[in-house]
Amino acid sequence: MIETPPLVDQYCHGVLRTELGLGTFEAQLVRSAGPPAAGTTFFDTQAGFAVRRWCPPLLGLEPHCAPARYLARRRELGAAEVARRLLRGSGVGAYLVDTGAPGDLTGPGELALAGEAEAFEAVRLEPLAEQVADTSGTVAAFLANLAGAVHAAASSAAAFTCGAGPGRGLAPALSAEPPGPGEVRGAAGRWLGRRSRGGALRDPVLLRHLLWSAVASGLPIQLHTGPGEPAERPDPAGPGLLTDFAQATAGLGTRLVLLGGHPYHRHAAHLAAAFPHVHADAGAALGRTGAGAAAVLAELLELAPFGKLLFSSGAGRLPELHAVGALVFREALGKVLGGRVAEGAWSWRDADRVAAMLAAGNARRVYRLDGGG
Amino acid sequence: MIETPPLVDQYCHGVLRTELGLGTFEAQLVRSAGPPAAGTTFFDTQAGFAVRRWCPPLLGLEPHCAPARYLARRRELGAAEVARRLLRGSGVGAYLVDTGAPGDLTGPGELALAGEAEAFEAVRLEPLAEQVADTSGTVAAFLANLAGAVHAAASSAAAFTCGAGPGRGLAPALSAEPPGPGEVRGAAGRWLGRRSRGGALRDPVLLRHLLWSAVASGLPIQLHTGPGEPAERPDPAGPGLLTDFAQATAGLGTRLVLLGGHPYHRHAAHLAAAFPHVHADAGAALGRTGAGAAAVLAELLELAPFGKLLFSSGAGRLPELHAVGALVFREALGKVLGGRVAEGAWSWRDADRVAAMLAAGNARRVYRLDGGG
Amino acid sequence: MIETPPLVDQYCHGVLRTELGLGTFEAQLVRSAGPPAAGTTFFDTQAGFAVRRWCPPLLGLEPHCAPARYLARRRELGAAEVARRLLRGSGVGAYLVDTGAPGDLTGPGELALAGEAEAFEAVRLEPLAEQVADTSGTVAAFLANLAGAVHAAASSAAAFTCGAGPGRGLAPALSAEPPGPGEVRGAAGRWLGRRSRGGALRDPVLLRHLLWSAVASGLPIQLHTGPGEPAERPDPAGPGLLTDFAQATAGLGTRLVLLGGHPYHRHAAHLAAAFPHVHADAGAALGRTGAGAAAVLAELLELAPFGKLLFSSGAGRLPELHAVGALVFREALGKVLGGRVAEGAWSWRDADRVAAMLAAGNARRVYRLDGGG
Repeated sequence: MIETPPLVDQYCHGVLRTELGLGTFEAQLVRSAGPPAAGTTFFDTQAGFAVRRWCPPLLGLEPHCAPARYLARRRELGAAEVARRLLRGSGVGAYLVDTGAPGDLTGPGELALAGEAEAFEAVRLEPLAEQVADTSGTVAAFLANLAGAVHAAASSAAAFTCGAGPGRGLAPALSAEPPGPGEVRGAAGRWLGRRSRGGALRDPVLLRHLLWSAVASGLPIQLHTGPGEPAERPDPAGPGLLTDFAQATAGLGTRLVLLGGHPYHRHAAHLAAAFPHVHADAGAALGRTGAGAAAVLAELLELAPFGKLLFSSGAGRLPELHAVGALVFREALGKVLGGRVAEGAWSWRDADRVAAMLAAGNARRVYRLDGGG
Repeated sequence: MIETPPLVDQYCHGVLRTELGLGTFEAQLVRSAGPPAAGTTFFDTQAGFAVRRWCPPLLGLEPHCAPARYLARRRELGAAEVARRLLRGSGVGAYLVDTGAPGDLTGPGELALAGEAEAFEAVRLEPLAEQVADTSGTVAAFLANLAGAVHAAASSAAAFTCGAGPGRGLAPALSAEPPGPGEVRGAAGRWLGRRSRGGALRDPVLLRHLLWSAVASGLPIQLHTGPGEPAERPDPAGPGLLTDFAQATAGLGTRLVLLGGHPYHRHAAHLAAAFPHVHADAGAALGRTGAGAAAVLAELLELAPFGKLLFSSGAGRLPELHAVGALVFREALGKVLGGRVAEGAWSWRDADRVAAMLAAGNARRVYRLDGGG
Repeated sequence: MIETPPLVDQYCHGVLRTELGLGTFEAQLVRSAGPPAAGTTFFDTQAGFAVRRWCPPLLGLEPHCAPARYLARRRELGAAEVARRLLRGSGVGAYLVDTGAPGDLTGPGELALAGEAEAFEAVRLEPLAEQVADTSGTVAAFLANLAGAVHAAASSAAAFTCGAGPGRGLAPALSAEPPGPGEVRGAAGRWLGRRSRGGALRDPVLLRHLLWSAVASGLPIQLHTGPGEPAERPDPAGPGLLTDFAQATAGLGTRLVLLGGHPYHRHAAHLAAAFPHVHADAGAALGRTGAGAAAVLAELLELAPFGKLLFSSGAGRLPELHAVGALVFREALGKVLGGRVAEGAWSWRDADRVAAMLAAGNARRVYRLDGGG
């Protein structure tokens, strides 16, 4: 068996604090534009099957038990106790939490407590700008406060993250250079002028300014790749845009981490090989692909240097997804790396070393989690 | 072993009625712009190997026998008897037949009789419009008759299908809304004015009008995806266009089924997860990939909800392709789902249930084959 | 076990003549825009692991030994002896050498001698034109000499190859017809006028002229596909452009061989099925994907006719990469084809036949290596 140290989950959200009915629970299993089609259920997916395999035993039930029975047990224990059991049973030692996701979710501190783990913050850029806009009276104040907020986040957080992504409206922001000061002032004036308090940031010039401010801060930046949310159109130029952005940011000292990306994960792995500052995510797709995760992990391992792949669960809202992400990853790692050893392609020693890198070591180095700064 | 009910082949064509020489037979094994390259044969393909594996035993020969020997036995038995044996040996209980393919092919009734199976019609939109054009004197008559023909087909057929597809000239028709009445009248006038009897429909406005008329009818619509025929250029925006069309048709009550799609099948599976009304085809690529089919099926099962994947053979002209499609699918299903059970990832009960859904249940529900209407 | 004849490596470069330090050696393992990221090494990649698995035994060391120990042994033996041992241990019987790669590399003759193998030349088009430009005084002389040089190369070399590719700046050259004579003269005049001796050819009109001159010569043409070098932007229209070019050159009698292409290798395999004159490369990606090569080979074998896939190492500079390419290919072939036989999908006889085709037979036929002309 391949052993790993406690995992670092390099990208996740908090969990819901409330009790969940069957329908609300089911709705979290798939990223869908609507409810399950008539005659189908989201439990009949890799994510649903993986939850039914891994989670019931952590709550004292048989694996593969029926959803209704699992939900009944969940209510019996209460949301807080369920989160504790699932998170502690997942083998994760540290979380990087994107605190910009909508909804009443636990923050890094609560997640750490529930999971008996460390927790670090990944600051999402759009909400940061929106908060600054809520408290800044003029364009000049907004831009100065924004610079201050980015600077402050860079010294306290582990990473920046972007809600947008190629295929998620980020395309224009990935252009090869930051916008000029006049362009930024103009865009800020227009956006501040028409937004109401709490209004979301979607202006492409300001997104570009934000992203390049983050690049200048030196903190690692997590970018979503892949087709994104159902309501958003995949950008056919996405992979090309990422290459452009990787070229434009090469040598500036800021590390990029490409999140998700399935079914284009091989492209992300290629970029992680081609650019010293680019890293790829070896997790978010795995929980969603459940029993098929080993094949996806093997594809990531074809091209990505082993020092450039980082585990994440990509989970949020349900602690089941955090647990499944970690347990599926660990199993896939054992299957793929154990297989390589069994057929004589890799030595045990190398396999264990690579497992430790993917599980925790790479994330600790990239995000400087051990206090290196 | 994973058991399945008799399969529903949700997309196929009829078979040729005539005897076939070696060259004519070989030409059907691969979708190619020309004959096999000098020094090669289409029998040396996954499709050719799969035919040689699965079909000889159904005609009383050893598996893997030489093509010439197989063709001799074929001639000995006669085309009709060969079709009967192959179709009955395939384990298919129902066919959805695209009746718009060119060539002298058996219709649904003959296929049903030969295969001792049910058969339903999938009406191809372009030939429907072409037949209406052949018998309509004016633009107004054409458009009224076309509306009537779409309505009539919607009440008698199981599905609409499109000869075109993204990468097959359908791109402009996938725009996010139907064309206006004036635009349609203008396009119809120009097309009717210059076409000779039997002329093919390629006008993008009329294709768009047809497709949106089909959407309005409520009958499921089958769309080709993937790179298409050799003579057609793949549309690089294809996946993005499909997402647009899925967004535009969400909530209208009409189901979409994405056919084929290899090597972009993971994208189709993603769309089936993201949109309640979108379904993916889990078959057409499998017969063509033969001994490699289990890997393709596993990739489809990564993201597609299990209630959204439907088997098809995508076969036509040779009954060998119908048989191979079904037998390869069933074997791949056993390998993938049986493997999941063997490694403890799935329960037997779940695996059997999913097998039945992919094999028949999903298609019976989506196309309302059990008379639900 | 699957047996193969001595391999034909249909695309490689020569090897470095000089001794190599650890850093220089490491830099050849990955195609990267820069040195390994801090805290990582290129030895921790599939290529690095494959080198450590296969090469130490050929130099008398244990497999998986540490890089420093391997490099020490390498220095002990000397570059020439190392090349001899690695090349002779790889089971390659013939090399097609792209002689246009930059750097002080051994030519075909030296490679043949070191490897006890045959060697043939693949003439790269851009350097051919640059050499002609260096010795031609006028536009008219340049164009006439270029025609002569292409003609001479066509009668002495085994193939033409292009440094450019889709995603490597070749896109404009893949347009569906050759440029007109006036256009070519104009472009040649402008290029000759501003280039200094030895200046590289990047003019799109001249590249197009060169490529179509090569098409007219009838010699097979090797085209790079896939995302290309880190410094180049992948062309999102790449696959579509290749289809256009395949359509435009169909029936002209000139064979195309699509090199590399991972992670879009399935698209290349599709084109090899769709067009009689198109072939796909089944090797360059394999050495780079090491222990993951069997999965990539299986994907190529899904769609590509078995008579259309050709082995290559894609290696250059380090003889380790030639050896690893061949040994990984042979192992992957044994695993995939042996697996097919073990599960009853293929007969032994067929598997051996297909292995021989991929290993050598297809390349010998396509490049007429046995003197057929």
